[in-house]
Amino acid sequence: MKPSRSARGRTRLSEVGEDTLIASILRGLPNSRSLIGDDCAVLEFRGARNLLVLKTDCVVENIHFRASTDASLVGWKAMMRPLSDFAAVSAVPQFALITLIVPATKSALWVKKLYNGLKRAAALFGVAIVGGETSAIRGPIVISVSVSGFVERKRSVSRAGGKEGDDLFVTGHLGGSLRGKHLKFVPRIHESRWLTENVRVHAMMDLSDGLGADLPRLAKASKLGFKIDKDALPLAPGASIDNAISEGEDYELLFAVSPRDRPRLQKAWRKKFPKVSLTPIGSLIHPSSFIPHPLKRGYVHFQ
Amino acid sequence: MKPSRSARGRTRLSEVGEDTLIASILRGLPNSRSLIGDDCAVLEFRGARNLLVLKTDCVVENIHFRASTDASLVGWKAMMRPLSDFAAVSAVPQFALITLIVPATKSALWVKKLYNGLKRAAALFGVAIVGGETSAIRGPIVISVSVSGFVERKRSVSRAGGKEGDDLFVTGHLGGSLRGKHLKFVPRIHESRWLTENVRVHAMMDLSDGLGADLPRLAKASKLGFKIDKDALPLAPGASIDNAISEGEDYELLFAVSPRDRPRLQKAWRKKFPKVSLTPIGSLIHPSSFIPHPLKRGYVHFQ
Repeated sequence: MKPSRSARGRTRLSEVGEDTLIASILRGLPNSRSLIGDDCAVLEFRGARNLLVLKTDCVVENIHFRASTDASLVGWKAMMRPLSDFAAVSAVPQFALITLIVPATKSALWVKKLYNGLKRAAALFGVAIVGGETSAIRGPIVISVSVSGFVERKRSVSRAGGKEGDDLFVTGHLGGSLRGKHLKFVPRIHESRWLTENVRVHAMMDLSDGLGADLPRLAKASKLGFKIDKDALPLAPGASIDNAISEGEDYELLFAVSPRDRPRLQKAWRKKFPKVSLTPIGSLIHPSSFIPHPLKRGYVHFQ
Repeated sequence: MKPSRSARGRTRLSEVGEDTLIASILRGLPNSRSLIGDDCAVLEFRGARNLLVLKTDCVVENIHFRASTDASLVGWKAMMRPLSDFAAVSAVPQFALITLIVPATKSALWVKKLYNGLKRAAALFGVAIVGGETSAIRGPIVISVSVSGFVERKRSVSRAGGKEGDDLFVTGHLGGSLRGKHLKFVPRIHESRWLTENVRVHAMMDLSDGLGADLPRLAKASKLGFKIDKDALPLAPGASIDNAISEGEDYELLFAVSPRDRPRLQKAWRKKFPKVSLTPIGSLIHPSSFIPHPLKRGYVHFQ
């Protein structure tokens, strides 16, 4: 870890940022027999044909939701966040474990509503909630959800693999999520599974921290640069270009395909998903190329 | 959920207790294609010979560790707790995901020490840390660890399956864990794997909430009663019988085998694990039988 040092000789996490922290953690790991994924961990399960896909994520009171937020929406969001990472790697989620950390003074009714939200979200994608843990806390509520599932070897896709000249597409609309969508979104699992069955997707991820933070990650993982046409961004109603780039929590797909596949993709998509927009927003370019529209950073944890 | 109602018409979790909460959650689940485990979830992974085993657990500041506790010991405990559940079902842990929820004001050095503890614990059992998430919190530190692995169909064991007349054994010593062991224990995975390879284990679990809370769970899952000889309990140095029954965090194995297998088990155990005691403490009996030594309850969350 090589963060800058504060005056008192102690580096605070707020000075490091999440990418740096995670990178430093991954660097320190012992060699794994397995591939380390980015959105999900994608692994060999001994003796199995398909790959094992794992993801854990959490929501924290006063960070990801307010104390006044409807508990069933909190549950929905807590389940859908890791499922959006399954969309990112085109995997099928199967099982969820839930860790609920909640003050003993909280009402049982609140917890019941929370589980209703978790169950409704899981049921939408056929995910079975197979276990859970609870703990008390003297502080904010935390809900952590771990999901496991599978992806066929041939359909596994990651942030790496983008090729120079690839067209970049995003699904749906960007920006304005914090006005409500972030509690009610539906992860693009169906769209993602359709994509890897019908198109050669070179690289893909879900947009959780905002295009301005996430697109550079996809480009970096693919060892490429990028250019985008800001005016082409599909803006959510009332959202500005800045909102679309920086707000985060869009939970849309960003992916790269060869320009040769573009016409066929767009035509087939319109037929399959007439209500979901698919927008070309730019392309992957040589890493040394001039970037005409540098993106402002999206949401970065701890900052 | 049928808890008693408080005067203000709102039931608090502290009035419900963890078993009731978890039971009510499980009752509300949609039918799963899979077995719902108790210590771990033990599941079919499509197209695989072995069963998929999943477990998530967490440690929370001021609940499971103090702010002053050495961070590497916190990491050790956070990893070893779910691994103890793998011991309970005789499974082999393979992959871990870590969710770290920590105030932005916390030092990066603390986090580095925490990860060192997590990594040392994982390495002891060949577990690969394959991913993680981080989040800020305005409150106590939370570390959630999700572990996946496998168990051979023939060696899978659970709390259910105990037979009337079975002898009950515990490994190691009970009580006094909170004086230090709870931060340094080594889950009984090697012992558990040896047991299911060499003995017909009818039912097994790990002792995390204290014998007084956990043994009734094993008996109930096996639809049996139990009797124990309190004076036979293997007490940790300085621990009383009450400590051994009620304190919790022993992370020892409790298991049931036929009395016919007892002599062979005890002889082979002494040879294989000369430094780990194995103590017969009682037996499983008909559920309607008189229980001469009712156990005080062990640690129950939220109470």
